[in-house]
Amino acid sequence: MPDTDLLTLQVDHMGILQRRYEQVLEEQGYDSLLISSGAAPLRYGDDQAWHFQGYGPFLHWTGLTGFEHAWLLIRKGHKPVLSLHQPVDFWHASLELAQEPWLAELEVRFSESQSTPEVPGAGRLAVIGDPRLLAGVPGEHNPGALCAALDETRVHKTAYEIACLAQANKVAVAGHRAARDAFLAGASEFEVSLAYQRATQQREADAPYHSIIGVNEHAGTLHYQYYDTAAPAKSRSLLIDAGVRYRGYCSDVTRTTAGVGEGRFAALVQGLEQWQFRLCDMVAPGVDYLDIHRKTHLGIAALLGSAGLVNGLSDEDMVTEGVTRAFFPHGIGHFLGVQVHDVAGKPVPAPADAPFLRLMRTLEPGMVVTIEPGLYFIPSLLEPVLSGPLERHINRSRIDELQGCGGIRIEDNVVVTDSGHRNLTREAEV
Amino acid sequence: MPDTDLLTLQVDHMGILQRRYEQVLEEQGYDSLLISSGAAPLRYGDDQAWHFQGYGPFLHWTGLTGFEHAWLLIRKGHKPVLSLHQPVDFWHASLELAQEPWLAELEVRFSESQSTPEVPGAGRLAVIGDPRLLAGVPGEHNPGALCAALDETRVHKTAYEIACLAQANKVAVAGHRAARDAFLAGASEFEVSLAYQRATQQREADAPYHSIIGVNEHAGTLHYQYYDTAAPAKSRSLLIDAGVRYRGYCSDVTRTTAGVGEGRFAALVQGLEQWQFRLCDMVAPGVDYLDIHRKTHLGIAALLGSAGLVNGLSDEDMVTEGVTRAFFPHGIGHFLGVQVHDVAGKPVPAPADAPFLRLMRTLEPGMVVTIEPGLYFIPSLLEPVLSGPLERHINRSRIDELQGCGGIRIEDNVVVTDSGHRNLTREAEV
Repeated sequence: MPDTDLLTLQVDHMGILQRRYEQVLEEQGYDSLLISSGAAPLRYGDDQAWHFQGYGPFLHWTGLTGFEHAWLLIRKGHKPVLSLHQPVDFWHASLELAQEPWLAELEVRFSESQSTPEVPGAGRLAVIGDPRLLAGVPGEHNPGALCAALDETRVHKTAYEIACLAQANKVAVAGHRAARDAFLAGASEFEVSLAYQRATQQREADAPYHSIIGVNEHAGTLHYQYYDTAAPAKSRSLLIDAGVRYRGYCSDVTRTTAGVGEGRFAALVQGLEQWQFRLCDMVAPGVDYLDIHRKTHLGIAALLGSAGLVNGLSDEDMVTEGVTRAFFPHGIGHFLGVQVHDVAGKPVPAPADAPFLRLMRTLEPGMVVTIEPGLYFIPSLLEPVLSGPLERHINRSRIDELQGCGGIRIEDNVVVTDSGHRNLTREAEV
Repeated sequence: MPDTDLLTLQVDHMGILQRRYEQVLEEQGYDSLLISSGAAPLRYGDDQAWHFQGYGPFLHWTGLTGFEHAWLLIRKGHKPVLSLHQPVDFWHASLELAQEPWLAELEVRFSESQSTPEVPGAGRLAVIGDPRLLAGVPGEHNPGALCAALDETRVHKTAYEIACLAQANKVAVAGHRAARDAFLAGASEFEVSLAYQRATQQREADAPYHSIIGVNEHAGTLHYQYYDTAAPAKSRSLLIDAGVRYRGYCSDVTRTTAGVGEGRFAALVQGLEQWQFRLCDMVAPGVDYLDIHRKTHLGIAALLGSAGLVNGLSDEDMVTEGVTRAFFPHGIGHFLGVQVHDVAGKPVPAPADAPFLRLMRTLEPGMVVTIEPGLYFIPSLLEPVLSGPLERHINRSRIDELQGCGGIRIEDNVVVTDSGHRNLTREAEV
């Protein structure tokens, strides 16, 4: 049972959302909005369904993952109507709704059918959700300008949302500790995944994203998606990027651990972590997130120099010449919320020097971002540098030595506060 | 590494499929067939993908789960062309193809793009797979008569397929043993799921279907889909319905375990198992599968009588009056193959007395079916019987006593042989 503070914050959250949504509907010229929770599609040509997690706007209001075929009706001056699908069904269990105070802010109905709730005097109605489920539903489906405006309501997290994200971090940190301990005890990637599941009490299917668990070279594949069931002869490194959902909200945390006897790699991990602390410290209102991304490249350059991986080039030259890009090819992070890559941040088009950056905005209080610098030994990216005009500056033998460790990523979840920031992940580690 | 026998059988399997497919194409008037392996869709409104497992016909030929955006081209008189998508991608790992003999029966190509392979002189071309991936692909997409005929090629399993299904049973049986041991040691549903994963070395996302793990009352929800993380005060029963994929082929096994001190429930489990053995023994060429389903009801009736749950009604009357249906509401089983509910068996419409039966055919050698009788205490189904005209025949207090055990299901995977049957699950338990 969550504590009273959280439940009180949730009631406030509902009020804030009501105001934000009413304003958006007013501005966009709609009288009412119907939100579909969604439903898991079947695998093509099969009768087995994918595992359901829920649609962003529905989670934003309710936090209820796993409720398929539910609907939420938002109207100006009315309580939201939450319609939950409860079929008479001896095949599947119905999720139970915990009796919590936020439910008093809604009108809750139960429906045996999957059809939409009645919308008396709906006026101009918008309906959002997976188009597969909207056939035959009256109203305008997924209007682009409205959807964009609703995405924007998710950018500034309420105190309730931040409390949920903090708890999601707390649980994830326990998982990361268990994962590290399992790795140091010689576990395979698969065994590490079991240790993470056990410590977080979260099954794989409920994780907010596919947990990345890479030992040795696998740590150098950014979104490594398999788990070896056998541990390697020598466990040199573990990179684990794994989160937890709490009341719909996602944590997204990465830790890298050097194996026993991997002093040089351990030093690199430590060096990147020191720089990661500095990047987190940059998080504050008014800061351009792209500046943090660019600063990361200078940090990577400094680290490459001090570790003796690159010699005789200034930090600035390493950045300009694309050397740091070969070691750190992805973006510094993204928004975080009821989706792991939360909406409304992605730059279109992306800046030329940061093609994979998922967020490019000036930071404002209430935003929650990840800060996740990385340093990898990825053959396909390093080869052009190793065989190019800068070849003589690169310490190939040291890179060869470290290649078997794959790479490093260190990722925290950071809230922009009125005066600076709050690091939810490090807080949870204390 | 699989043994040489299996690899030899696989080469034979390829030859058999080539002949079956050539015949179907000839009969349906096509010159060539392009099969899409599929790809995992994204969750709606999100950038996170579902977990991919592969499309039936592609698995039938290759057994390769997890290969997205691959294509297989079948033509008369030509080796099949297998085109695998291998992007230059530092984000994701590429699945590696084990160097096994069956690959010599194919022409294997690698493609950086997701586009279809060239089809020189294709003639009349059919293309099958998820329509989302077929936009712009020439040829006739998913023609109904052809798809039905191809489904039929999967009904009679080759020796290779049976060997794979046997191995999938062997691994699943190890998982079921670990699950039972964990339950008897007081584990929660969640902990049982971890024990099953560990023993099978299969992650949840790779399981052929969502494993059903129900303790106590939850055993009475047929497709119970959640896992409690806390064990109940008293663990009275465990029902676990869980399988394994081996080279694309699925096992589908259910076991029910009575908790310590649950003598009456244990006796019911044992009684149902004895009847399940008899049902498995019925499996033979020429037998109507529907007869096995109907025989199950007589067995349930006998068991209800001998256990004192129903008194003063003949077995036949219990069936005719719908008493057995209230305890055993589902079908006796289904085909099994590269999909857990394999294709080509489902009766349309279903018989009135077996609305959920997934298979209604006369058995023939090479078919593989599940035999899964069940006996449940489901309040919504029992209530009409308990309050109806047969009320006085029903031992309500005994039902109330057993309701907390949820129910029983016992499921094996059985091959129809030339002279009878082979029970892959019991074999694996020896």
